Amino acid sequence: MFTPSLHLPGHPHENMADAASSDPVAMGWMQGFPPPRDRQVRWDDASMWRFPQWRWGFSHMRALLPTASIPREGPVSSLPRALRNDLDGVELTTLAGVRMSWQQSLAATYTDAILVLHHGRIVYERWFGVTRPDTQHILFSVTKSFVGLLAELLIEQGKLHETLKAADYVPELAGWGLGNATVRQILDMRTGIAFNEDYAGGPGIVSDVQRMSMAGGLLPRPAGYDGPDGLYALVAGIAQDAPHGGDFVYRTPNTQCLQWLVERASGQSLASLITDIFWRPMGMENDAAIAVDRMGVAFGGGGLMAALRDTARVGEMLRLGGLWNGRQILPAAVVARALRGGDPAAFAHVNYPGNPDGSYASQFWHRAGGQAMALGVHGQGIYVDRAAGVVIARSGSHPVASNRGNMGVTIPAYDALVAALARD
Amino acid sequence: MFTPSLHLPGHPHENMADAASSDPVAMGWMQGFPPPRDRQVRWDDASMWRFPQWRWGFSHMRALLPTASIPREGPVSSLPRALRNDLDGVELTTLAGVRMSWQQSLAATYTDAILVLHHGRIVYERWFGVTRPDTQHILFSVTKSFVGLLAELLIEQGKLHETLKAADYVPELAGWGLGNATVRQILDMRTGIAFNEDYAGGPGIVSDVQRMSMAGGLLPRPAGYDGPDGLYALVAGIAQDAPHGGDFVYRTPNTQCLQWLVERASGQSLASLITDIFWRPMGMENDAAIAVDRMGVAFGGGGLMAALRDTARVGEMLRLGGLWNGRQILPAAVVARALRGGDPAAFAHVNYPGNPDGSYASQFWHRAGGQAMALGVHGQGIYVDRAAGVVIARSGSHPVASNRGNMGVTIPAYDALVAALARD
Repeated sequence: MFTPSLHLPGHPHENMADAASSDPVAMGWMQGFPPPRDRQVRWDDASMWRFPQWRWGFSHMRALLPTASIPREGPVSSLPRALRNDLDGVELTTLAGVRMSWQQSLAATYTDAILVLHHGRIVYERWFGVTRPDTQHILFSVTKSFVGLLAELLIEQGKLHETLKAADYVPELAGWGLGNATVRQILDMRTGIAFNEDYAGGPGIVSDVQRMSMAGGLLPRPAGYDGPDGLYALVAGIAQDAPHGGDFVYRTPNTQCLQWLVERASGQSLASLITDIFWRPMGMENDAAIAVDRMGVAFGGGGLMAALRDTARVGEMLRLGGLWNGRQILPAAVVARALRGGDPAAFAHVNYPGNPDGSYASQFWHRAGGQAMALGVHGQGIYVDRAAGVVIARSGSHPVASNRGNMGVTIPAYDALVAALARD
Repeated sequence: MFTPSLHLPGHPHENMADAASSDPVAMGWMQGFPPPRDRQVRWDDASMWRFPQWRWGFSHMRALLPTASIPREGPVSSLPRALRNDLDGVELTTLAGVRMSWQQSLAATYTDAILVLHHGRIVYERWFGVTRPDTQHILFSVTKSFVGLLAELLIEQGKLHETLKAADYVPELAGWGLGNATVRQILDMRTGIAFNEDYAGGPGIVSDVQRMSMAGGLLPRPAGYDGPDGLYALVAGIAQDAPHGGDFVYRTPNTQCLQWLVERASGQSLASLITDIFWRPMGMENDAAIAVDRMGVAFGGGGLMAALRDTARVGEMLRLGGLWNGRQILPAAVVARALRGGDPAAFAHVNYPGNPDGSYASQFWHRAGGQAMALGVHGQGIYVDRAAGVVIARSGSHPVASNRGNMGVTIPAYDALVAALARD
């Protein structure tokens, strides 16, 4: 989860326009030739990182940032349709005790688009706001789960070793916080590093997340900027402030470090790996893209942009143990390890809404019921419930960056939907 | 033709490394994780606009600039292959009197990739340097010919009128240089405006081309920048300095103005029009992209990025009078008007190498023999010779921006190739 958010109120929805009144079509963002000044969503004034502007921007990130291409290839793999529009009426009760329908939950979570697969068939699909089937919506930290899968694949291939340390692969990290963390500690975000993953920040404070965003080019650099140049320079400049191997603490530099290990161990860039392992062989419908810093390093912590049906295909491939489009995309052992979950004791202190007894491991979030989640700020997600045969892909533009802002609705909604599908 | 080039020697090849010694693979641009500082090609230090860095950069512009997506769709249209590797040995004499083979001419023109169609079959195809079939190479001013075709289409549809003035469609232009130029004068670049299309510039001088590049985001803006914000603001701020309707003078703001008329008259963005008219229906192999300024306005003057086989398809569609992939992509009347050429008397003063008695009209260059050329700086081109049944698509990274730097080789080479194909 990541966003260089500016100051947001501490309480979800406080002073925030609801989904209908912040609808990006109704607000007219970026309409007209050129759009009027007060309807522009821009990189250079950071307006792309403001609500409600980002309800347009998250669907158009590649027009705001430089990107590496992740091309598709060949015939499109089939996603058969068996639509169940009656699902709109499924009832649920949010963690705050509010009764609402599934359809209402989509507005309550500022959902941009959502697709539900049940045993491989599309049973539900909706496009809101400015989204269309070919929209390359930013996935934010869902990107991390791709880096995690690639790391697990390299471990399986013997190119990365769980117990070796980051500096064994990237000598530049020696003496810095992540250098003496193991591959496994980094994969599971159980490192002790001096980085505060606070998205909200505050007026006048340059947060760690904003520093990372300037290093990576997501935010413009002020005149006289003397911070790190590039995502890897940022990663290599973070100190250790606690022992590694302790509790899970969600910090994006772990993933950026993991990407560094993956690129060095494979000799390929992240964009090239995602292309070769996922996008070309899976029969994707659309090209994907990934934001890159000023020296071409991809933002593996949160920069992937993809069409929703393609992220759903990734979820379905995981549900099927790595098999998709007639090919074994990932070895079954890699998928099993990525989805097996982590240590609930290391996760308990997080008190994550909707996820009691859950865990985090291999760059996935896990529920006690065995469901795996790739999660990105503002409501991005791939939800894989193998027991129920359900995969849900969702993009969103929630006013609150942290998914704590929507999980109180999302989890009861998903549980109610899965129960309804099981009944029929 | 366009590039925000920095100072270049006045004489082609003077002090310039040849194609082999400037090969981007051999030079190792952007290799490594991250690439070493002296091997980086970047936007923020303008190194992307330096030779030989641009031998890598022109194949990776979307990783350096924000872009709008131009997605493909559906099955790929067929380009049958009937390769003629013997063509490498075709002999030619350059305008400077140098004898060389076709193969040598490719190095002499710093060709990145080239594809020759003869009666619809690929007879020759080569990939050099960092190019591959899916490389979205920058087309520079080949982009203009797309804007020209769209303008001719809107004229055919009655949405634009050749004799109306720019300010009739875009009131913001009233009182400025292009406001009282007609649609036809702008299409044919026969306007009298105070803009110097000098790519080379000089040390310490901010040229008009550099001002345009800063307005459009192709170059970073210096601290305290108070120039135009966006490509349209630049266009609307250019004065008239001569009567409209005089001789042809090549100036990119004409095209940027034409794009403005096209967008206002159609109600669609340029990226959306290129998608709907060309990319979706033509069975393209790859997505294309187009650079956008900070408010999302596409750089129709030179920002299109596309795979070579797809630009070849556009050339073949033009050769076939608008028919491609089983569809009439453009009305035959539109293609006929775009390729009919202009007034040689208005072109003669240009003394363009290799193009005596040529002309410029509808955003295409025309030879006296009836061949039409879409041309972009540094050697980009689509060459359509309807009489000979030949289409040539080429991308390049020549050290000299203006095609004056390569036409003395290019034109004799193309003529020799066409003659060889006619003989067999």
